[in-house]
Amino acid sequence: MSPSQSVAELGEHALIARLQARVAAPPPWIVAGIGDDAAIVSPPRGEVIALTTDSLVEDVHFRRAWTPLDAVGHKALAVNLSDLAAMGAAPHAALLSLALPPDLLLADFDALVEGFLTLAGATGMPLVGGNITRSPGPLVIDVTAVGSARARRVLRRSAGRANDDLYVTGTLGAAATGLAALRAGLSRPGLDPDLAACVARYERPDPRLRAGVTAARSRSVNAAIDLSDGLADAVRQMALASGTGAVVDATSVPVHPGTRAWAERTGADPLSLALSGGEDYELLFAVSRRRRRGFLAAAQRWTGLPVTRVGRLTSESDLWLDGPRGREPLGAGFVHF
Amino acid sequence: MSPSQSVAELGEHALIARLQARVAAPPPWIVAGIGDDAAIVSPPRGEVIALTTDSLVEDVHFRRAWTPLDAVGHKALAVNLSDLAAMGAAPHAALLSLALPPDLLLADFDALVEGFLTLAGATGMPLVGGNITRSPGPLVIDVTAVGSARARRVLRRSAGRANDDLYVTGTLGAAATGLAALRAGLSRPGLDPDLAACVARYERPDPRLRAGVTAARSRSVNAAIDLSDGLADAVRQMALASGTGAVVDATSVPVHPGTRAWAERTGADPLSLALSGGEDYELLFAVSRRRRRGFLAAAQRWTGLPVTRVGRLTSESDLWLDGPRGREPLGAGFVHF
Repeated sequence: MSPSQSVAELGEHALIARLQARVAAPPPWIVAGIGDDAAIVSPPRGEVIALTTDSLVEDVHFRRAWTPLDAVGHKALAVNLSDLAAMGAAPHAALLSLALPPDLLLADFDALVEGFLTLAGATGMPLVGGNITRSPGPLVIDVTAVGSARARRVLRRSAGRANDDLYVTGTLGAAATGLAALRAGLSRPGLDPDLAACVARYERPDPRLRAGVTAARSRSVNAAIDLSDGLADAVRQMALASGTGAVVDATSVPVHPGTRAWAERTGADPLSLALSGGEDYELLFAVSRRRRRGFLAAAQRWTGLPVTRVGRLTSESDLWLDGPRGREPLGAGFVHF
Repeated sequence: MSPSQSVAELGEHALIARLQARVAAPPPWIVAGIGDDAAIVSPPRGEVIALTTDSLVEDVHFRRAWTPLDAVGHKALAVNLSDLAAMGAAPHAALLSLALPPDLLLADFDALVEGFLTLAGATGMPLVGGNITRSPGPLVIDVTAVGSARARRVLRRSAGRANDDLYVTGTLGAAATGLAALRAGLSRPGLDPDLAACVARYERPDPRLRAGVTAARSRSVNAAIDLSDGLADAVRQMALASGTGAVVDATSVPVHPGTRAWAERTGADPLSLALSGGEDYELLFAVSRRRRRGFLAAAQRWTGLPVTRVGRLTSESDLWLDGPRGREPLGAGFVHF
């Protein structure tokens, strides 16, 4: 087999065998992995199962010309891990379903699988099954992630309460800035380090598993959600589900330095990128004031990951942004469809 | 909203809300269904989890011109349920991931969802989550099915032993015959009943959940696999995984009456359709002789579903077909890719 062969030349069975050969030995909770009609996994005793699925579609979520396929494989798993993190669930098993254009090169297939399996290995997320089929159109990568958690520790987006403080992990706007830089055709080698970090965040989001799982175990968090469509959208979704309103403090929103650099260069509004830019995959937590100390103690263990108070939930149902120019309605998020 | 609107006019959030409104109240083991970052399900105490995923891609697995979209929705779930049945796992929860062409009509979206949810309701398979995105090409339906079973009752394809008898449920060749009739442009109203039954089998396969689950509980079965790519392929996969060979007795293969009628009409070989025709989604069981009585007692409870002995596993690794003209190598199955 040569990397310049197409996937159609190999066919489904050979591709599955190739993938299977690359998969690491499964951990003990995988009773049966790839190779039967279904995988069999054994959840930790007394824990519930978290289930989520998300897909990446070529020319909707990525372009092969802009994004290397190992990054696409990484991201397809990362966005699902981010959903588990937002529930406070630990990684348990993953399924990978691929619809491949027949002219896709074997080298591209290998890169996609490598990106997926490298992140899977790093996060303790064994690949236990999947499906490979032909696509007459775009490359489609559909991932299902299975996590586990103690039932009473699960973090729901709907359990926020009025007067809870809102905390966000990391810095925001990076992924949207990275996408804008790629769209503007900026060449990677010449990028300044802050912008290069934005491109890396767009291509290879880092799911906040440790933050989500330890926050859940600390019992200090009322509600959580991940930032797939921006901070404004996440606050809106959490408030809507919790039956509260919210106020975001514009001056405290942690804007990524690359986003500031990009805004200076292009005249864009850095706060808009930080509030409405999609795909940062940070976590938003609602924390009641009397649990603040416990939450911040848990957050101290998220080495290198800052956490910032950005606002609070309110008893009125309105959504506001408090900025230097006063109070204004909180804008909308990023729309994929 | 009007059924002649396109899905792009509604957008992702409205489509999810529409789907959510149609979903029945979840059973007690669903801790959290649609609407959070991940669903939370609680598996039966002491049981393991079965996981499988399979997708239907427009113009690869179905054509919108030939197959009504409610049948596509039914089939997308049915093929996954068939995988659970083959493991002896009971339905527990399903995830549905859709990539929709923007010009898809809302009426078509509704039909697809209706077909899926009707089968989900009939089989006790709650829809707990999923994903909707745009497709710049074909309609893609990706389903993940979660089942549950006692660890010691799970049916593996690899646990067959030499001298086990091979039993198959139902009658074979129907789905391939139905597809051939659709390809030949036969109009539905004029079809004879046996051929119409073949079209129905192709469009709406009936996953053999009861057979799979009761066979597993009866402790009479060594190995099982479903017939997604034909009997010959299923026998080959089971023998390969079990480290055995197999002999299929051609004269005992239960050919669907519609397949016989089609063969007479077109000159096709009915046995080839029954052996190599894909998508019948019957089950193949390997049963040791001393467990035969227990197996047949369990099978008596599969009301209306015949079970037929079609051959046996052998200690040599070859695969044979014994027919009226003597012994010949067992042919290959149906290839989707």
